[in-house]
Amino acid sequence: MQALQDEICTGLTTLDGQEQFREDSWQRPEGGGGRSRVLREGGVFEQGGVNFSEVWGETLPPSILRQRPEADGHGFYATGTSMVLHPRNPYVPTVHLNYRYFEAGPVWWFGGGADLTPYYPFAADAAHFHQTYKQVCDRFNPHYYSVFKHWCDEYFYLKHRQEARGIGGLFFDYQDGQGELYRGPQADSEAANYSQQIGTVPARDWEALFGFVQACGRAFLPAYQPIVERRQETEYGDRERQFQLYRRGRYVEFNLVYDRGTIFGLQTNGRTESILMSLPPLVRWEYNYQPEPNTLEAQLYETFLKPQNWASWTDA
Amino acid sequence: MQALQDEICTGLTTLDGQEQFREDSWQRPEGGGGRSRVLREGGVFEQGGVNFSEVWGETLPPSILRQRPEADGHGFYATGTSMVLHPRNPYVPTVHLNYRYFEAGPVWWFGGGADLTPYYPFAADAAHFHQTYKQVCDRFNPHYYSVFKHWCDEYFYLKHRQEARGIGGLFFDYQDGQGELYRGPQADSEAANYSQQIGTVPARDWEALFGFVQACGRAFLPAYQPIVERRQETEYGDRERQFQLYRRGRYVEFNLVYDRGTIFGLQTNGRTESILMSLPPLVRWEYNYQPEPNTLEAQLYETFLKPQNWASWTDA
Repeated sequence: MQALQDEICTGLTTLDGQEQFREDSWQRPEGGGGRSRVLREGGVFEQGGVNFSEVWGETLPPSILRQRPEADGHGFYATGTSMVLHPRNPYVPTVHLNYRYFEAGPVWWFGGGADLTPYYPFAADAAHFHQTYKQVCDRFNPHYYSVFKHWCDEYFYLKHRQEARGIGGLFFDYQDGQGELYRGPQADSEAANYSQQIGTVPARDWEALFGFVQACGRAFLPAYQPIVERRQETEYGDRERQFQLYRRGRYVEFNLVYDRGTIFGLQTNGRTESILMSLPPLVRWEYNYQPEPNTLEAQLYETFLKPQNWASWTDA
Repeated sequence: MQALQDEICTGLTTLDGQEQFREDSWQRPEGGGGRSRVLREGGVFEQGGVNFSEVWGETLPPSILRQRPEADGHGFYATGTSMVLHPRNPYVPTVHLNYRYFEAGPVWWFGGGADLTPYYPFAADAAHFHQTYKQVCDRFNPHYYSVFKHWCDEYFYLKHRQEARGIGGLFFDYQDGQGELYRGPQADSEAANYSQQIGTVPARDWEALFGFVQACGRAFLPAYQPIVERRQETEYGDRERQFQLYRRGRYVEFNLVYDRGTIFGLQTNGRTESILMSLPPLVRWEYNYQPEPNTLEAQLYETFLKPQNWASWTDA
């Protein structure tokens, strides 16, 4: 997880071209700590944060114990790397990734994923992002992409807005190499249906899952960098900037109301500044905003904030 | 509750001097509706929202049923007025009020309060706000202010920041005229301690509690207007504006992570735009911000974001 943080930060510094990451190391009184890296006011990134943390303690919070009752009464160890990038140019999408590993008594599991949140609708970008991750998934298991793509659509959903956060990507949790791929709470979701159709997949050992998570982590730069490179020089005006600031509000709403990582961090007395490093540097709310019909902003809502089969999109 | 919305909007329109409130009426599919009024880009107020709502349904959400198990299995009726004002000038504090009334089967209760969130530290403003509400409380019950002031300090607290949201005011809930004044969850809080010392207060009937809530509602303009009038012409620069935008982030964090009204609204399928009207129009987050020592910003943190006995403050 530390190596992943290092690789990503090196790649992003090159991509940004102007600013460096600054690091804070921190310790958690109850056990463990981390290192938080932030890049601010860069050439490409208005703000980017890449966190590594490694924490341990006496007991997992109730929200996780409900999903993993076997961990009750045991100490836990958790480590992960997470990242959120808020680009300056509204044509460059915001992106998030997180990979994490837990051990508690008799159980261990991996979780994580990566997802893209565009402000302006470019099907080619969405397709590139999904296709990159699909290729990684397909090297490990032919069912991974289908389940984890739909799980991502299910997870990054703002119920109170009836909107997806963005165009999705991959999301998975509680991957211990046993049983069904989908281990989420929504028994009637598309991810759950796919997983049930497949049935129990062949058992995977720790190394195989670790290999998959590593491969996903390494796929981030190839998935995101080409999108930045083709959008970062696009000229924009106040209209696009205002729309970007408005849409960033949804990111805040998601992270504070729904996000599992944020809630875990706040519940386990994590370092608040590192947990909330994912929040955008500048955000706008506007009462009752509706995009004008037949604009790019409307197209974002109509097509890009609803689940689509981006991996099979073609330019034809 | 509708009359309270009308009175407050009339007063605020005069105070603003430039803009009017615009109203949207809405209906809730499961029963009831409301009217939301927003003033934007005014002379004093960058944004102000005053909501009235009246909703009913088959069952209260679990978060309320845990506090009022007698309501389980009964339909409910809930009505309330809430307001948040975000002034433009950083020397003018943000203010919030909410009064609400519930009925469900055999039980009914009132809740509500008002609290002030300054960006710059003026003890005279904090004292005026508290003294105004203390005078109202003292007309009804000599213990109201002590319990409801401490309950407000307990409620408007950001645990993950270890900070008060502002300088407080009044907060109360589940007031049905029976038993102890404090009905909150923190058995060891100052509000709970005060309430226990007092013991059971003489039973109050519905009219007496309604009168108290009405009097609190009518005290809002006298509590807030003088503060606006003495601060709104103060000149400010980018430093003060940036600090205001940064501190507004705490308002967002509180409302999305902790606020009972927001959670009730989202859980009962309320109108999202009306519920989130409380969020500020422009907000900034900054990683690891710390105020410089010996500045007004530092003084805000040191004195104004911790509970103080503002009602007995004197200029001496």
